[in-house]
Amino acid sequence: MSVTIDDIRAAAARLAPVVRRTPLLTDDFVNEQLGARLYLKAECLQRFGSFKLRGAYNTVAQLEPDARKRGVVAFSSGNHAAATAAAARMFGVPAVIVMPADAPAAKLAQTRALGAEVVTYDRATEDREAIGAALAAERGLAMVKPFDDARVIAGQGTVGLEIVEDLAALGVTPDIVLACASGGGLAAGVAVAVKAQAPDAKVYPVEPVGHDDLARSLAAGARVANAPGVRSIADALLVATPGEIPFEIGRRLWAGALSVSDDEILDAMALGFQRFRLVIEPGGAAALAAVLSGKVDVKGKTVVVVASGGGVDTATFSRALARLG
Amino acid sequence: MSVTIDDIRAAAARLAPVVRRTPLLTDDFVNEQLGARLYLKAECLQRFGSFKLRGAYNTVAQLEPDARKRGVVAFSSGNHAAATAAAARMFGVPAVIVMPADAPAAKLAQTRALGAEVVTYDRATEDREAIGAALAAERGLAMVKPFDDARVIAGQGTVGLEIVEDLAALGVTPDIVLACASGGGLAAGVAVAVKAQAPDAKVYPVEPVGHDDLARSLAAGARVANAPGVRSIADALLVATPGEIPFEIGRRLWAGALSVSDDEILDAMALGFQRFRLVIEPGGAAALAAVLSGKVDVKGKTVVVVASGGGVDTATFSRALARLG
Repeated sequence: MSVTIDDIRAAAARLAPVVRRTPLLTDDFVNEQLGARLYLKAECLQRFGSFKLRGAYNTVAQLEPDARKRGVVAFSSGNHAAATAAAARMFGVPAVIVMPADAPAAKLAQTRALGAEVVTYDRATEDREAIGAALAAERGLAMVKPFDDARVIAGQGTVGLEIVEDLAALGVTPDIVLACASGGGLAAGVAVAVKAQAPDAKVYPVEPVGHDDLARSLAAGARVANAPGVRSIADALLVATPGEIPFEIGRRLWAGALSVSDDEILDAMALGFQRFRLVIEPGGAAALAAVLSGKVDVKGKTVVVVASGGGVDTATFSRALARLG
Repeated sequence: MSVTIDDIRAAAARLAPVVRRTPLLTDDFVNEQLGARLYLKAECLQRFGSFKLRGAYNTVAQLEPDARKRGVVAFSSGNHAAATAAAARMFGVPAVIVMPADAPAAKLAQTRALGAEVVTYDRATEDREAIGAALAAERGLAMVKPFDDARVIAGQGTVGLEIVEDLAALGVTPDIVLACASGGGLAAGVAVAVKAQAPDAKVYPVEPVGHDDLARSLAAGARVANAPGVRSIADALLVATPGEIPFEIGRRLWAGALSVSDDEILDAMALGFQRFRLVIEPGGAAALAAVLSGKVDVKGKTVVVVASGGGVDTATFSRALARLG
């Protein structure tokens, strides 16, 4: 079961009344510094703080009304939690969200404030998928997966649709498009949308260093897992294994996979503060970090990075500010 | 010499190729908390970090080509400096910018990086207008005033034009519009644009507490100055006296003037970080601060605040983050 550009266009029509068409921002200084035309897709300005509303809403909208009425369940390290809670609230149905106990406080609070029931678990010792599946079975809830679902990927793909459409309005075609990746749903959906409209563009997922399951899976030709217990400042990008559907899409459409360190991510967040006046969370800054740290040759190119979310604690944001001295 | 809606429409046409149409953002939580529909006009996402590019470019564009070729001079505590330097660079002419020696380092650096010559002065003992006038006379430079010029006010007024147009596309008319004020150019231009299209809307300038020259001038029926030496965290809002043209417009069109404390401004910056994922500088957060601190009754209303700029040092931004605990 794959995802087509038509699925993404259908998702865009469903999402039009509820999501914000986020701006594609440029900065003259950054462009001069890079010798490239860099566009930043500011999904950190999306409602509820990240692109995740797109996939969650596109999924909840397609549930059978009777099933939807019983409610939904999701597991998430943060942004998908708030997104699923928000989508459920828009349809007036209950949501149960399974979240790691060490998720950023702001994300836990936001999910609860959206009316969801939050069930916490220990990231090191418990299996969130099992907890979610048990809740789904017990209460008859529909699972809204974070990435391994064609409806979710089509929803996230609308980010790519908007990128290509907004660039086309400027008379520009993208050469390179980068999006952060954990399970790979965003990077897969964006790849489908971009490659359908700009077949020569190179699309890259960007992962944390040491959490490069996509890069190793692409090399192996099959999905491989990360070593357990690897940490990264990018709390949103800590899934153990690539999603099955995202990987099947990505192995056909991605030009490779890139990875960035915590320091590279913090530097990208600092540039986001200083030049783009945006609050970008660590995971959301990974794609920008890959460009700034030279992981891909952008000279003379038109490059798009997705800044996927803005849910960051003050302590982490202060670490980024500290790098500006 | 006043400013009309036609002047603002003409400015909008001039500015279309160079300024960004900044988004009008909302946040579900903030709306619930206020019991209002709050829209934030994100001019902190404007090119070169503030709305000031609008007025500066609209002025430089209207100089006689021969005069323009000799170059321009401006005095500014920061954003108007970068804006004038950028506008001059777009026309390929020299710019000399007179800036206070204690302006935020980021603003001094940005102005120099834009190719302008920066002349610094002591805010406590020297008169920037005299320095600017002397430079203009010596070198035959055209003065680009920060606010007391109909061309500048018309440029800033395009912010108000976009607000009303973008709300109209949503089927909404503003009840209350707030913009920060120093000399009053932005608040005057916005008032002309808003009142021409939504005559019942109330438009308020917002000043720092203790720097409320507009409020006292409105009460006195004539322009009065601030006590010398009053400081505020809002470095962009420290002009001694209202501008003559802005005051003449404002006394006809403003519903009054509001003022906010440093702590109220820091809280607004913190909310900007947490809920809007935006970096808003202290002066730029004044309008939002007035709403959050209850300076005007917004219950059930459609309210627009202009977040006018994003040029803030890390130390000041950290003070705002600290208020989130």
